Amino acid sequence: MSWISDAAFTPDEPFGPQTLPYGVVERGIAVRVGDSALPLRSVAGSLGPRLPDLVGADSLDPLLAAGRPVWSELRARLVELVSAATAPRGAELVPIDGARLPFAVADYVDFYSSRHHAENVGRIFRPNSPALLPNWTHLPVGYHGRAGTVVVSGTPVRRPHGQLPASGGPVFGPTRRLDVEAEVGFVCGGPVRGRLSTSQAVEHVFGVVLLNDWSARDVQAWEGQPLGPFLAKSFATSVSAWITPLEAFAVARVSPPPLPNPVQPYLVSDSPWGLDITIEVGVNGTVVATPPFREMSWTFPQQLAHLSVNGATVRPGDLFGSGTVSGPEKHQRGSLLELSWGGQEPFALDDGTTRSFLEDGDTVTMTASAPGEDGSVVGLAEVTGTILPAE
Amino acid sequence: MSWISDAAFTPDEPFGPQTLPYGVVERGIAVRVGDSALPLRSVAGSLGPRLPDLVGADSLDPLLAAGRPVWSELRARLVELVSAATAPRGAELVPIDGARLPFAVADYVDFYSSRHHAENVGRIFRPNSPALLPNWTHLPVGYHGRAGTVVVSGTPVRRPHGQLPASGGPVFGPTRRLDVEAEVGFVCGGPVRGRLSTSQAVEHVFGVVLLNDWSARDVQAWEGQPLGPFLAKSFATSVSAWITPLEAFAVARVSPPPLPNPVQPYLVSDSPWGLDITIEVGVNGTVVATPPFREMSWTFPQQLAHLSVNGATVRPGDLFGSGTVSGPEKHQRGSLLELSWGGQEPFALDDGTTRSFLEDGDTVTMTASAPGEDGSVVGLAEVTGTILPAE
Repeated sequence: MSWISDAAFTPDEPFGPQTLPYGVVERGIAVRVGDSALPLRSVAGSLGPRLPDLVGADSLDPLLAAGRPVWSELRARLVELVSAATAPRGAELVPIDGARLPFAVADYVDFYSSRHHAENVGRIFRPNSPALLPNWTHLPVGYHGRAGTVVVSGTPVRRPHGQLPASGGPVFGPTRRLDVEAEVGFVCGGPVRGRLSTSQAVEHVFGVVLLNDWSARDVQAWEGQPLGPFLAKSFATSVSAWITPLEAFAVARVSPPPLPNPVQPYLVSDSPWGLDITIEVGVNGTVVATPPFREMSWTFPQQLAHLSVNGATVRPGDLFGSGTVSGPEKHQRGSLLELSWGGQEPFALDDGTTRSFLEDGDTVTMTASAPGEDGSVVGLAEVTGTILPAE
Repeated sequence: MSWISDAAFTPDEPFGPQTLPYGVVERGIAVRVGDSALPLRSVAGSLGPRLPDLVGADSLDPLLAAGRPVWSELRARLVELVSAATAPRGAELVPIDGARLPFAVADYVDFYSSRHHAENVGRIFRPNSPALLPNWTHLPVGYHGRAGTVVVSGTPVRRPHGQLPASGGPVFGPTRRLDVEAEVGFVCGGPVRGRLSTSQAVEHVFGVVLLNDWSARDVQAWEGQPLGPFLAKSFATSVSAWITPLEAFAVARVSPPPLPNPVQPYLVSDSPWGLDITIEVGVNGTVVATPPFREMSWTFPQQLAHLSVNGATVRPGDLFGSGTVSGPEKHQRGSLLELSWGGQEPFALDDGTTRSFLEDGDTVTMTASAPGEDGSVVGLAEVTGTILPAE
């Protein structure tokens, strides 16, 4: 019996004490317990001498900078507090509505680490070439995205204009191929460091979010050579309002699918860091895909070790996306591009309409969960957004 | 006769009152006058009622956020102060040494807007295809880089490790093809805004720096498909310590070379914004190239209008690079890749050695200037860096 509603302690509650994701509400930084938020300011007096400075902040930035030992200490103390029979003095529970982007995004990198996704995209865009490019099995392919347009779940997404390919030369207008990419995002913290080994990389990941890498496929097809995606992605990238701490995934760890060749020593991980997270992608309430994150060939410690192998510094607030999560089955594809096979095979929604790409007014909601201790469920907070018509 | 050394007022002094670039020294934000810096804190009492709040800062961030009207007011007042016969009360001149990175880089974007560079690279890397890809004449091709590894001039650059292409599969080690790219960088400010017209874009550019986009060509060749450059560029990007205000370039404006096709209306500029800046690229004291910025096909207002045409917000501290500046002549090429034609034609330094790419211990220094009013010279502060051996 906890002082918090018993509902937060049932095995199928994804945001119980086994999860305790961090976010920012009007009262400052908070942990989510069920459908309520506990502002840490309200329990600062119960957190021990080292922690109150951090929890008085209006963003998670100081906590991200503090590093793993502080993250572990704070989490342990919070699990105790929410599980206690009586409420800590001053504790308040407030609604989770209105949660803000909880940290300042430093650099944002997006990877491309699902083999199924990379092969599907290769088959759709380069039908006369091998599906997978030669570098793909040797390194986690990635690129930098726009940190300034990372937005919190719930932010509407305006259909972007851009140059679109056409037979007589490019035309300008609203994208006709607005898409989503279901991804898992990793939020970095700890001291600023250069090159990280895979095991050091684990220590620099604070937590995990869902990430929707909105994409304009026609813009991407025209602009993308030779320097990669630019405006096709930079109009908006949505992330969960609540960051699930990495420590919540201890039970969800699995071995990733093997690569067909040995990898360079700096990419070898001495323990498995695949994560058994299952994502649900909903469009207007219809679940259109259930991408399995355990199918990703490259894991987050490999991605972060690769990102920094050239000496690039990793800063608190750095965010990197896994790349679109797609599994081997058709219903496991994490983008509409794949689900509609480049627009050739529209799919049905429960309301009787069909989609190849998104229409104005569509709402895309992604949720996800992973197995937790003792049969519990660890949740990733939803990432949702509704398409506004082009201006 | 000014209270400042007469040397700062000779026509060939690139950092006289016609230039007055901003930077940050130990005493806070400052303008450079000749080879000295005037900390604005020391003249805060002479700047009028609105300005002292900004000039007490330890970085240019508040000034960048303030926007064009404040930039113009401050510059006008500073020109008066440095040109006055007697020193303002409290004014100090301090050495320019030790200037820091003067602002927090928000997002960093790199363009590719020299036709000569794009064609040279196309010929070197894709000898059996057309030199220019079809999109190049329709939009300023660009991509996002890593904001967190932008460093100030003088910062040593460690030779990065990476995966390098080899006949039996990739090998891992220090890059063997370490290169430079001579670019002009633009520092943004003003209120956070989405889509900007070309004329609005001009109002959001605070000033101009030299930018060396260090590049590992072998890493780039292996990693770059299909998502563009990543680790080949993200280890370091060097910029001048002093930002020359855009207003200093009024006399340097020229029409850019015409494109072979009409451009979309959002890319039309109603007044010319090519800039007659000539760069000198020096390696260990030998001038190896003099790239002419007036040869760039896409101008900075077009680049910023393109960057934001999808609604992407532009924030104070956003930095974008022009792309490598190369002219039509061999000695005008802004990268060693081009100067040595992919390593096939090593070039000589004055010390009798030759180079295709950089060796450990090499120092690369770029300087640049443009015509100013009344025959004066407007300088861009140097950007320099020395290569340290791989760790």
